[in-house]
Amino acid sequence: MPDLTPELLTEIRARFAHVETCPFEGERVFFENAGGALTLNSVVETSARLAAIPDNQGRDNGASRALQQMIDDARADMQVFFNTPDRNFFVGESGTELLFRLIRAACLGTPAGR
Amino acid sequence: MPDLTPELLTEIRARFAHVETCPFEGERVFFENAGGALTLNSVVETSARLAAIPDNQGRDNGASRALQQMIDDARADMQVFFNTPDRNFFVGESGTELLFRLIRAACLGTPAGR
Repeated sequence: MPDLTPELLTEIRARFAHVETCPFEGERVFFENAGGALTLNSVVETSARLAAIPDNQGRDNGASRALQQMIDDARADMQVFFNTPDRNFFVGESGTELLFRLIRAACLGTPAGR
Repeated sequence: MPDLTPELLTEIRARFAHVETCPFEGERVFFENAGGALTLNSVVETSARLAAIPDNQGRDNGASRALQQMIDDARADMQVFFNTPDRNFFVGESGTELLFRLIRAACLGTPAGR
């Protein structure tokens, strides 16, 4: 990747939390999927902001509609990002749970006798 | 409650996010359990700090042990807070899920013939 200059790499790394240090043990490179991948600082900030909002999607008020709009916008953004304009996105608590849902859908969608 | 002075009440209210205003619609008093109770600012900050840590309890390293210690300390604190030194605390995604687990435990713990 000739376009990935050291400067660009430094900029990318600066956007993530705990890239080179552990808050408990000092110098460390995290490389463990189950423990959680590295998290974008912007994700930490956005998650905290949304966690404090005492409302939910699916209610009949402006805050609720604003939250639903964020979800709809994010799904539309993901369609652009993955270049799949006619596909759906869904989220879950873990990769294991998502695999379970995918396998379940495949099993239930298989015609009888196959 | 004669000890709950207006000053103390103001201090208590100041510790929560969005007590009197909605970030989308302005003046509003949130009073809806399913949409989420009011959240302490310290909880928002702590959750964000922990969400950024790319490790988990149950691993063989110092960060993992520090995370497990936080959970153990929190459970011990809850025993003091509720004055139930010999009881357990468990958490879940929603009140509905916790009720399900309580009812399941009650059913499975009932002797045959009862």
